[in-house]
Amino acid sequence: MASSSYSNPPCAACKFLRRKCMPYCVFAPYFSPEEPTKFANVHKIFGASNVSKILNDVLPHQREDAVNSLAYEAEARIKDPVYGCVGVLSLLQRQVIRLQKELDATNADLFRFICSDMPTTTTKTTSEQLP
Amino acid sequence: MASSSYSNPPCAACKFLRRKCMPYCVFAPYFSPEEPTKFANVHKIFGASNVSKILNDVLPHQREDAVNSLAYEAEARIKDPVYGCVGVLSLLQRQVIRLQKELDATNADLFRFICSDMPTTTTKTTSEQLP
Repeated sequence: MASSSYSNPPCAACKFLRRKCMPYCVFAPYFSPEEPTKFANVHKIFGASNVSKILNDVLPHQREDAVNSLAYEAEARIKDPVYGCVGVLSLLQRQVIRLQKELDATNADLFRFICSDMPTTTTKTTSEQLP
Repeated sequence: MASSSYSNPPCAACKFLRRKCMPYCVFAPYFSPEEPTKFANVHKIFGASNVSKILNDVLPHQREDAVNSLAYEAEARIKDPVYGCVGVLSLLQRQVIRLQKELDATNADLFRFICSDMPTTTTKTTSEQLP
């Protein structure tokens, strides 16, 4: 009776896989029918079975984050089949190295300015203290 | 005759999938028998069929990079099933934001030092030019 009265629209995963979406469906809370591409992408890159395995391997409160990170990776791999999100990661790594170098150089410049000002200040203070 | 005389050891993928490694095997150039974990990881996360599809979708000279980025993603997902390499990516994004803020602040400090030095220099130059 309960299953026959279950009339919610199927989640994006069950709709994609053309199967009945049961109340305990592991995908339903994370793949709403309004976002069909999200499931299509993770299915294309990871496969429904692997996504389901990953979801069952993590705690219930971590599943939304797991799905969102999988969806991000899948979309990145579809956009860039060679590097996927590792391409974005390499770009960020290079940006971190460049910024760290710039920061080191600017700090060195600042240090030189401070040092070049110091003797003047010291001399002034000393001469002011003289009788 | 050619296939029966083919006696190379199977690649890591064919060994894992317990199948005969043929000379045209799509996995063989990228999954040597010396690195069994590399294939086991991508198989666990993406599935052999999806890896094979991705390899067939990219140009032959891009396949090594594609395999290495897939292997990186798979290893990251095994280490961190919730965030995978998206966790590393978020960390790098936060690092970029922090470094950019630090650089902006240091540049502002440097600018203030340069500006505070400027009037003194200008006055000196002007007074030196007076008769």
